[in-house]
Amino acid sequence: MITTDICIIGAGPVGLFAVFEAGLLKMRCHVIDALPQIGGQLSEIYPHKPIYDIPGYPAIQAQELIDKQMEQIAPFQPTFTLGERVEALEKQEDGSYVVKSNEGTSIYAQVIVIAAGLGSFEPRKPEVEGLTAFEGKGIYYMVKNPEQFRDRKVVIAGGGDSALDWTIFLSEIAEKVTLVHRSENFRGTPDSTEKVFELAKHGKINLLLAHQLSSVRGTGHLTDIIVTNKRQEDVSLKADALIPLFGLSPKLGPIATWGLAIHQSAINVNTVDYATNIERIYAIGDINTYPGKLKLILCGYHEAALMAQSAFKYVYPEQKLSFKYTTVNGVHAF
Amino acid sequence: MITTDICIIGAGPVGLFAVFEAGLLKMRCHVIDALPQIGGQLSEIYPHKPIYDIPGYPAIQAQELIDKQMEQIAPFQPTFTLGERVEALEKQEDGSYVVKSNEGTSIYAQVIVIAAGLGSFEPRKPEVEGLTAFEGKGIYYMVKNPEQFRDRKVVIAGGGDSALDWTIFLSEIAEKVTLVHRSENFRGTPDSTEKVFELAKHGKINLLLAHQLSSVRGTGHLTDIIVTNKRQEDVSLKADALIPLFGLSPKLGPIATWGLAIHQSAINVNTVDYATNIERIYAIGDINTYPGKLKLILCGYHEAALMAQSAFKYVYPEQKLSFKYTTVNGVHAF
Ligand SMILES: Cc1cc2nc3c(=O)[nH]c(=O)nc-3n(C[C@H](O)[C@H](O)[C@H](O)COP(=O)(O)OP(=O)(O)OC[C@H]3O[C@@H](n4cnc5c(N)ncnc54)[C@H](O)[C@@H]3O)c2cc1C
Ligand SMILES: Cc1cc2nc3c(=O)[nH]c(=O)nc-3n(C[C@H](O)[C@H](O)[C@H](O)COP(=O)(O)OP(=O)(O)OC[C@H]3O[C@@H](n4cnc5c(N)ncnc54)[C@H](O)[C@@H]3O)c2cc1C
Repeated sequence: MITTDICIIGAGPVGLFAVFEAGLLKMRCHVIDALPQIGGQLSEIYPHKPIYDIPGYPAIQAQELIDKQMEQIAPFQPTFTLGERVEALEKQEDGSYVVKSNEGTSIYAQVIVIAAGLGSFEPRKPEVEGLTAFEGKGIYYMVKNPEQFRDRKVVIAGGGDSALDWTIFLSEIAEKVTLVHRSENFRGTPDSTEKVFELAKHGKINLLLAHQLSSVRGTGHLTDIIVTNKRQEDVSLKADALIPLFGLSPKLGPIATWGLAIHQSAINVNTVDYATNIERIYAIGDINTYPGKLKLILCGYHEAALMAQSAFKYVYPEQKLSFKYTTVNGVHAF
Repeated sequence: MITTDICIIGAGPVGLFAVFEAGLLKMRCHVIDALPQIGGQLSEIYPHKPIYDIPGYPAIQAQELIDKQMEQIAPFQPTFTLGERVEALEKQEDGSYVVKSNEGTSIYAQVIVIAAGLGSFEPRKPEVEGLTAFEGKGIYYMVKNPEQFRDRKVVIAGGGDSALDWTIFLSEIAEKVTLVHRSENFRGTPDSTEKVFELAKHGKINLLLAHQLSSVRGTGHLTDIIVTNKRQEDVSLKADALIPLFGLSPKLGPIATWGLAIHQSAINVNTVDYATNIERIYAIGDINTYPGKLKLILCGYHEAALMAQSAFKYVYPEQKLSFKYTTVNGVHAF
């Protein structure tokens, strides 16, 4: 069991800044995110786009902002669980909570901060016969640990940057990589597209354009993938793993069942401290809603600051909070 | 008469960010500040201190933050009136306002944003006989334009950085500079202190330590300053100008008489759009108050963003506001 003061659900920019504001008040944080990497929408959807409305940055690339925020919270030594989705929340007798992930991780915390953005990114699943039966047994919607594909026969499906980039990366590790894409053209960056065509030309990967996934087979574990070509002919591929990469779409998911007041997939909060209707549970960033709400990063920062002032009473019930400027105190590590 | 969409009172970090958020919505701003320079408390009180809680900046010097914000708002070409204090507000028949400064400048605007921080910084005035009679006629509490002291006999009074720095600066321009300080020690940085002693040693300035200002004389314009030494003896100095630099203290001032709902020197606002009780008048940053208020720069940024969304309807009553990310649109100049 992981023990912390505040469990933050979501490692986007707002969850990360909550670590900072909590840290200034000497509260430790554990952050959990369903994605395999830190950074929320910024790192997952638009890492290379410049953002122009971060105060004090005339322009900053999304990934650079996340990197700066990681540097800013380093003195507070937050801990992370990545690639695991929060599923359940168990209230303890003394008012504290245990958070449980889909992989069985438990986190014990005095306060819960939901900074879950648009919800957890769920993979878009293709319509393929027999797909769900092999999930986790040869079918993976995300690459968390590339090493698991070493010396394996891997089929990747999709036509965007994820599909292209993992094809390039795994071509060095796997025994064989086949990339299946329904169209003749890729949607990824020209660079990655060119590299994939190059690899195919030199026989380093197997490229099947204008092919569709049709069904999967195996006994216990995945062994065969059937794809269909333009002339509606089936082709069978021997494979240890299928990685369908058709993008991610966000879902509020199990959080919706916790008894929180929810309006249009967002959690209702007040603007005094961004607390939800349940004591000790706060919601900040894109996941919350209140009159005037703007889904902007800079607004989430403000929400994180007010949240931390309020959460303090649960972590240090005996202490009085005193407000000090960082210019006066600096940033003290624990 | 200056004509603009939004008149922002206060050129601190929050007023400056309001220019940015307004600019994204194609609203032009004119900013007025009582101080001779831009930057509010950051530039006036702690330009060289590092701030640690600006999101995305592990540390940034106060003045550097202001410089970055100026760069960020440059595409929107804001205009500034500096060194003038806003005194009066006149409501027009159509709901718009004319703002008037203590020096007679008039600004016509659809919307007023009060970003006045702790109020306008008023000079602390020493107790000196006859002082007020010569204000503006030889006595200046601020150096707005150093050139006005070229080839003049100047007496500076005070022992902090402002007094030291202006002594050093004016020693090059004025005919003669005398620095009067009541104690034997300066409160300024060691660098400036050393430089002042150096100038005195080489006869470039006249340094009177352990002397107090006692009275001022003249006919119409200031001509003589009487200072008293430790032995209670009076010394008379011929002078064209006296610059008492005993620090600034903030005062809400005339804003308090505009009919705004005020609580403990701060203006009450709601958290939907940071509007005051008077239509078309908003208050953001340190000057406002609401349940949960923290006097932090990052909170003022959020308030500026929500304010701009709301102010839009007064500037473009016929248009519908559409919310777009900066990553999508970039920052378009007017
Ligand atoms: C293309 C694009 C451009 C944008 N441009 C701008 C811009 O210019 N300026 C601006 O201010 N904003 C912009 N935004 C919006 C900005 O990205 C969001 O406001 C910001 O990401 C919100 O941060 P957050 O931390 O609240 O949530 P997110 O960044 O969404 O992070 C939430 C995290 O929570 C995780 N999570 C959710 N549910 C669970 C669960 N049950 N268990 C574990 N983890 C979970 C998710 O995996 C995710 O990583 C843009 C967004 C997009 C898509
Ligand atoms: C030593 C110190 C350290 C600090 N450290 C931090 C920190 O680490 N983090 C943090 O977030 N905050 C910190 N603060 C607070 C921060 O400086 C303020 O929150 C911030 O300056 C508020 O910005 P503002 O734009 O609202 O107002 P201000 O910066 O106060 O600017 C207001 C401006 O309005 C002008 N004005 C007022 N009345 C009038 C008038 N009638 N006419 C014309 N002009 C007028 C004033 O001259 C002033 O320039 C610190 C403050 C101090 C003093």
